[in-house]
Amino acid sequence: MDIKTKIKTTDIHIHQLAEIVGGPRAILYHKEDLIAYDCDGFTLHKHLPKAVVFPKDTEEVAKLVKYCSENNLPFLARGAGTGLSGGAIPINGEVIISLVRMKKLISVDLENRRAVVEPGFVNLKLTNSISDKGYYYAPDPSSQYCCTIGGNVAENAGGAHCLKYGVTTNHILGLEVVLPNGEIIEVGKNGILDEPGYDLLGLLTGSEGTLGIVTKITVRILKNPEGKQTVLAYFDKVEDGSKAVSDIISAGIVPAALEMMDKVAIEGVEAAAFPVGHPKDIDAVLLIEVDGIAAGIDEQINQILDVCRKCNVREVRAAKDEKERERWWANRKTGFGAMGAISPDYLVQDGVIPRSKLPEVLQRIQQISEKYGLRIANIFHAGDGNLHPLVLFDARIPGETEKALLAGSECLKVCADVGGTITGEHGVGIEKREEMRFVFNDEEIIAQTNIREVFNPDNLLNAGKLFPTPGRCVEIKKEMKEAALKA
Amino acid sequence: MDIKTKIKTTDIHIHQLAEIVGGPRAILYHKEDLIAYDCDGFTLHKHLPKAVVFPKDTEEVAKLVKYCSENNLPFLARGAGTGLSGGAIPINGEVIISLVRMKKLISVDLENRRAVVEPGFVNLKLTNSISDKGYYYAPDPSSQYCCTIGGNVAENAGGAHCLKYGVTTNHILGLEVVLPNGEIIEVGKNGILDEPGYDLLGLLTGSEGTLGIVTKITVRILKNPEGKQTVLAYFDKVEDGSKAVSDIISAGIVPAALEMMDKVAIEGVEAAAFPVGHPKDIDAVLLIEVDGIAAGIDEQINQILDVCRKCNVREVRAAKDEKERERWWANRKTGFGAMGAISPDYLVQDGVIPRSKLPEVLQRIQQISEKYGLRIANIFHAGDGNLHPLVLFDARIPGETEKALLAGSECLKVCADVGGTITGEHGVGIEKREEMRFVFNDEEIIAQTNIREVFNPDNLLNAGKLFPTPGRCVEIKKEMKEAALKA
Repeated sequence: MDIKTKIKTTDIHIHQLAEIVGGPRAILYHKEDLIAYDCDGFTLHKHLPKAVVFPKDTEEVAKLVKYCSENNLPFLARGAGTGLSGGAIPINGEVIISLVRMKKLISVDLENRRAVVEPGFVNLKLTNSISDKGYYYAPDPSSQYCCTIGGNVAENAGGAHCLKYGVTTNHILGLEVVLPNGEIIEVGKNGILDEPGYDLLGLLTGSEGTLGIVTKITVRILKNPEGKQTVLAYFDKVEDGSKAVSDIISAGIVPAALEMMDKVAIEGVEAAAFPVGHPKDIDAVLLIEVDGIAAGIDEQINQILDVCRKCNVREVRAAKDEKERERWWANRKTGFGAMGAISPDYLVQDGVIPRSKLPEVLQRIQQISEKYGLRIANIFHAGDGNLHPLVLFDARIPGETEKALLAGSECLKVCADVGGTITGEHGVGIEKREEMRFVFNDEEIIAQTNIREVFNPDNLLNAGKLFPTPGRCVEIKKEMKEAALKA
Repeated sequence: MDIKTKIKTTDIHIHQLAEIVGGPRAILYHKEDLIAYDCDGFTLHKHLPKAVVFPKDTEEVAKLVKYCSENNLPFLARGAGTGLSGGAIPINGEVIISLVRMKKLISVDLENRRAVVEPGFVNLKLTNSISDKGYYYAPDPSSQYCCTIGGNVAENAGGAHCLKYGVTTNHILGLEVVLPNGEIIEVGKNGILDEPGYDLLGLLTGSEGTLGIVTKITVRILKNPEGKQTVLAYFDKVEDGSKAVSDIISAGIVPAALEMMDKVAIEGVEAAAFPVGHPKDIDAVLLIEVDGIAAGIDEQINQILDVCRKCNVREVRAAKDEKERERWWANRKTGFGAMGAISPDYLVQDGVIPRSKLPEVLQRIQQISEKYGLRIANIFHAGDGNLHPLVLFDARIPGETEKALLAGSECLKVCADVGGTITGEHGVGIEKREEMRFVFNDEEIIAQTNIREVFNPDNLLNAGKLFPTPGRCVEIKKEMKEAALKA
């Protein structure tokens, strides 16, 4: 039986797309199969794709992109679908180009500290593949056991250890990219960081799948630190915990991670799979990790214990062994999901603020919580001011989903107002499009959409993401063009 | 006497430009004044500007830019003019917008580790302004005592301490930019690193003055390391020195700096202002600095001494005091200029290679030296593979300048061939335009010039820099446009 007779639809595009990827086993087009692709980690919007195709290499991706472009079919790329802002949701009935079959570790060059992977390669697998030789890949989003490095590049993903090691863009040395016209380009070709010309590597990283589809990635790998140690500190008052965060940084220590959870978050993580016995009557727990040269670790840990004590800590201590350290981290890293133990639904937000504004912002988030009558848990990367307010709600109660969205948006407004921004690591996607106006004026948004037009002139690739829905921006642009034509 | 009568030319543009900057004291237009602006640190091409204007604030810059755009006058921005690739040379008779009057330190926010400066603020002054409080600004190009931070942003300048601390782009948190149409935008507004939307901050940093004029810069400042120590190591063979570089990094140490000089370079620095008594019969000297938590320094220094001994070092030792450490650095940091003591002229090149290719590349550079009969000194950031071959020549000998240029270009070809690139920190400017073809194909160059067109559609701002002179690229682009129109 040939491909044609195996494809059970009269839609000619489905036949052609199947042809490109080598047959019916590499395409989904029945509604019951497509439902699994109607959203990503942001579950509040759902849309069915036209089809999902599974190319096996760059050439197939390029052919798919060319076919979609020539036939005016909207399309987008998808990794593991763990994104939290809706970047991979096919809101225009896109053809989804799934990269999960392109999951090879292509090469590892320990001497020059690089590895080359396909986009569907899972984040944690990289560290697992090189840890026996004493190396690791630094960016560690909480979903790292299943999210793909391709998706990490699209979203410029962060993780608990960003404070010291930076976000994904700081670890990407080169990309092979299929442009929306089907052309294949390489940027940062040789894995040399400081390439001449414009920084396309930085531009493409974090562009949320709107400028091209990444098909090969050269990443920086790091030598395992000689030692690491983690401290847990309980504070009766959020203000004291926040002060400890500032004072640790002021002391010149750059912890590998500096995490905070508030009282509601503690209730959640203690009710879920990895409880560690946090007291329930405290306002804040800090998890502080330092790593580096072994000889320096103890000194830094002692300094941290000192700072915490000066900030009225109730209890503070270093992990007694590796097992305890790992348990503390499991408790923290499964924190978002743990909210499911105390609430039917939750919406995770992702704002950034200057560290010094922490107490003020947490107070204002509390006010938003009271205003909407919804509990808000805070689990966050305190060291770099990256907040994750988790708005707890019950979607079965009419109007509560909308309330949660409004409360989440207000939290971001607070972040923007104190001199911060609306996303630290989850991206804008469809979730925070309108909130882009909190931080960019029309001219600044136009400067960005103009760049999108260069790469993606027909806007067939992942349209409607990242920027506010058309409105005043489009008018201004039209006026500018008319003025230019007149001149 | 009003402005009009004070301006001694009938050129209406000069009168209008003078009007914008508040009078004749803020404009130069006589040939004898303009000669000082006919080149920058790259002295092999000289062109007179039409005029040099000295705006005092962003508004004046925006007005100047608008005036030039509306009157079809080519223009470019200039800082201290220390650039080494000719990025500030007015090859089209540009109006030079000098930013040296915009030299304020606007604010310092120690708590959130940021400072805001005007573009004409001198690099080293920033560290000098905050060092008493225990902070510093990391990027340290050798010209830091006079180069401006605006120029550093344009060129994405590096320095000896890039290995651990990264280049300028890793320290820029926000920019205010006047676009070529006179619009003012802010990117990375609040000094938050991971801004939503496209990474315009990264795109503008290192764009060599072709996308806009930076008028305000938010930089990251760092806490002084608790301790630092420097080691000097002499090797009889370059191979042994190179192996020590690789082995130090492989040991998991990230030195703050890891510099190398070869025999010819040693001859130069020992003949110049800061000799330190390097033996003249060795092939390589390494300067290795570590910094960080005091408790870790000694351990690292001991590891480094060990590695060097295992690599057949002739002599190795740590600096006995701060004075000796400073003297070693003065010897290294004035290395380029020191070549003047052994050669009437020199051309500095700036390639990057994977660390593991060091011995091979140095050998091939030696062959190039023999081929052209010109001595080549090598002073370089060995830790990050950033080579600076210095081609020594005598411009008074007919044909020798051309030979030096060819030899320099061949050195870059070698770097590209071994999987490296053509500039690490000096930029492309006019010097390395054609060498861009060593690392980018036509499609990749077009992807970049398309971006320039978005920002700089009339190409009045710093035209003819950074990309190869038109040719095949332009043809391809025309063909693509025609094909698009037909489709």
